[in-house]
Amino acid sequence: MLVLITYDVNTEDPAGRKRLRQIARQCTNYGQRVQNSVFECLLDTAQCKLLQAKLISIMNPEKDSMRFYYLGKHYEQKIEHFGCKPSYMPEDPLIL
Amino acid sequence: MLVLITYDVNTEDPAGRKRLRQIARQCTNYGQRVQNSVFECLLDTAQCKLLQAKLISIMNPEKDSMRFYYLGKHYEQKIEHFGCKPSYMPEDPLIL
Repeated sequence: MLVLITYDVNTEDPAGRKRLRQIARQCTNYGQRVQNSVFECLLDTAQCKLLQAKLISIMNPEKDSMRFYYLGKHYEQKIEHFGCKPSYMPEDPLIL
Repeated sequence: MLVLITYDVNTEDPAGRKRLRQIARQCTNYGQRVQNSVFECLLDTAQCKLLQAKLISIMNPEKDSMRFYYLGKHYEQKIEHFGCKPSYMPEDPLIL
């Protein structure tokens, strides 16, 4: 299933930037960073629980917030993109 | 239906901060700002098209990106929140 993870942290603070880098590193093991603080991950239920636990251990719950949106398996028609970054689907190959 | 709108802009730039304020003002007519650049809006199809057109006219397509996620009508079980801001559902009354 596609899980959208949005992470809110004040990146003016170096510790916040570090946490965002750590969050991004974990999320990009399972998907892609589509915006600065938005990650789309393809996960099964077990992976989702594991990733949640990792991210919760990184975040500062007094300063940061994190939201998970469960978009299911048929997400292709549920996403639209506008603006400067190219649109892609999470199953597309990642071009580096 | 619930539409999640994520907006990516460099807010270190005053013009970017202004665009983000304008985007937020439009989105909060239909829903709530749940994170700095994440908005949850309850929209029908016509409202969605209208809001999209407004936001596209505000954004700078060479610098910003915007993604729309369509979560449908039964979104209550599709959202989980962790961290510092209280969880809420878009249909809950807004406490100011």
